[in-house]
Amino acid sequence: MIEDKNPQRTSIENLGEFGLIDHITQNVELNQDSTLKGIGDDAAVINHTASTVVTTDMLVEGIHFDLSYVPLKHLGYKAVMVNLSDLYAMNAVPTQITVSIAMSNRFPVEAVEELYNGIKLACKIYNVDLIGGDTTASQSGLIISITAIGEQKEDDIIYRSGAGDNDLLVVSGDIGAAYMGLQILEREKAVYKANPNNQPDVEAYSYLLERQLKPEARKDIPKLLKELDVKPTSMIDLSDGLSSEVIHLCKNSNVGMKLYEEKLPLDPTVIAACEEFNLDSTTIALSGGEDYELLFTVKQEDFPKIKANPSLSIIGHAVPNGEGIHLITRSGEQIPIKAMGWNSFQE
Amino acid sequence: MIEDKNPQRTSIENLGEFGLIDHITQNVELNQDSTLKGIGDDAAVINHTASTVVTTDMLVEGIHFDLSYVPLKHLGYKAVMVNLSDLYAMNAVPTQITVSIAMSNRFPVEAVEELYNGIKLACKIYNVDLIGGDTTASQSGLIISITAIGEQKEDDIIYRSGAGDNDLLVVSGDIGAAYMGLQILEREKAVYKANPNNQPDVEAYSYLLERQLKPEARKDIPKLLKELDVKPTSMIDLSDGLSSEVIHLCKNSNVGMKLYEEKLPLDPTVIAACEEFNLDSTTIALSGGEDYELLFTVKQEDFPKIKANPSLSIIGHAVPNGEGIHLITRSGEQIPIKAMGWNSFQE
Repeated sequence: MIEDKNPQRTSIENLGEFGLIDHITQNVELNQDSTLKGIGDDAAVINHTASTVVTTDMLVEGIHFDLSYVPLKHLGYKAVMVNLSDLYAMNAVPTQITVSIAMSNRFPVEAVEELYNGIKLACKIYNVDLIGGDTTASQSGLIISITAIGEQKEDDIIYRSGAGDNDLLVVSGDIGAAYMGLQILEREKAVYKANPNNQPDVEAYSYLLERQLKPEARKDIPKLLKELDVKPTSMIDLSDGLSSEVIHLCKNSNVGMKLYEEKLPLDPTVIAACEEFNLDSTTIALSGGEDYELLFTVKQEDFPKIKANPSLSIIGHAVPNGEGIHLITRSGEQIPIKAMGWNSFQE
Repeated sequence: MIEDKNPQRTSIENLGEFGLIDHITQNVELNQDSTLKGIGDDAAVINHTASTVVTTDMLVEGIHFDLSYVPLKHLGYKAVMVNLSDLYAMNAVPTQITVSIAMSNRFPVEAVEELYNGIKLACKIYNVDLIGGDTTASQSGLIISITAIGEQKEDDIIYRSGAGDNDLLVVSGDIGAAYMGLQILEREKAVYKANPNNQPDVEAYSYLLERQLKPEARKDIPKLLKELDVKPTSMIDLSDGLSSEVIHLCKNSNVGMKLYEEKLPLDPTVIAACEEFNLDSTTIALSGGEDYELLFTVKQEDFPKIKANPSLSIIGHAVPNGEGIHLITRSGEQIPIKAMGWNSFQE
């Protein structure tokens, strides 16, 4: 399994809370003009010229991630992506993040560094400033809580609530891969437990693993839509699974929706993995979470602008609220869509 | 001990993550003009006319609080206070918070409600909007991560870095009481463990318990200073203990400091409790944390404006950086001040 073989271990306890914070934050760069004050005071100070957009997400060890196969650097990177994805879903431009971490003494300082290396890499690539946070002990397990802050003119913010009848439903990229990546990792973990000498061969699944371990927020999609001169009427990001997010969008916009099974964008490796695991790929596309793609509606008249774009798939269209939310199968059957997304409280 | 005797228990698992969020957020009111969008989308939207001030703090069960004697409603209230205190320390006006919570299935929905009742009460009293957050399961224990957002004109924000030589060091209220409250609670817990029929008599310690269990952020102090026409040159809030915060202030302002033992504001009940516990009250004043008072420096010329104010105590003055940070004892001894504040990573 993927593991940190680094033998260097410096105890957090010796460094202390302030020592650790100093250590982690020593190389933090501020690149956003809007950051007036970053780490180092009671609070950070931001000067946005447009509206401020704020989102927050918490990742909990044993619930959202398993450190037996998730490298800490990837985890740090992904924790930032999860939040930036929410900002892109508002059509906002991410500018700052705060990062709070609770972790047990069992983590050496080097492990915390790895986690922050992932966070800092994400900040660099997505041009956001790390402006604050909190670092504390926990009695067990690692918890990461990130708040991401972005900016956008009030009129250009896109909510979940603007979809109208007949609007086209569009999704970026492809879906289901992150979920199948998780299945691969879980299977390899079980194999490793049974025989630690077994060398996993995950080459064929690299796309699935990357989607699970190192997702990218779709920074490019709002940019693309601007270039195409398309303004979505509503938008949401895919974190909990397509069916769940479609229901959110419909509920907020007071519309129904028809989704077409044949239009769901699935990578060939997802289909292959589903066959291998004896899973129905449509179910995975609807219920598998963590894709961090953008799901949005556009007006019918925008169809010509997006129809041939390889990054975008039109997967359905809005219908009047009373008509409900349905999947139209390849055989023409109409099946009601229920939220099958992830519920962290389920045992 | 203080305990929730409410027998009603609804399982979180049955309600599910979205059900729980809907349940908790159903009565959330938005009162701030600057809140354009609260809970219910991928992110919240804020329209500040001045600079945005952001702080975040994480509270972890078993590290920052012990649910065997902390009522959940108080905990929720305090978690908000801890954050607002940081905003007041910047001279900012709190406007919004986000609240992320990880908790195990063992908590019934009623417990989560109690926690949120405390959070909502704090929002009401301090006029801040609850605009977002995250709710998730944890494998063990309760974790609360709050981000507080405030507003202030760029020129009116007060940093830790502005103290100059000879500036007076001022603290609001009194100190050490929250720490002594914690000692009382720990003692009563031990007594209760030894004999659960023993009825604790904590009447005499009500001030100490209130300071520990239900602290108030000093909303009134920035207002008072404005009325007195005093602008602090630097400011910080007292969360980790006076000595630790004085060191932060000095380090950021490049000054040394002389503190006078006889000037430290101690409530008589703190002195009495220290005697009872055989603790040195000066040590408690310097090292006991969680007072959430404001510590700030003012120019010498402002002395007449603050000298007689019952809410403010002048406890020392800045000296050139090379002269270090010292406590001048009642007997005139000069003792170097070292950070003795709290380190969550210490076992």
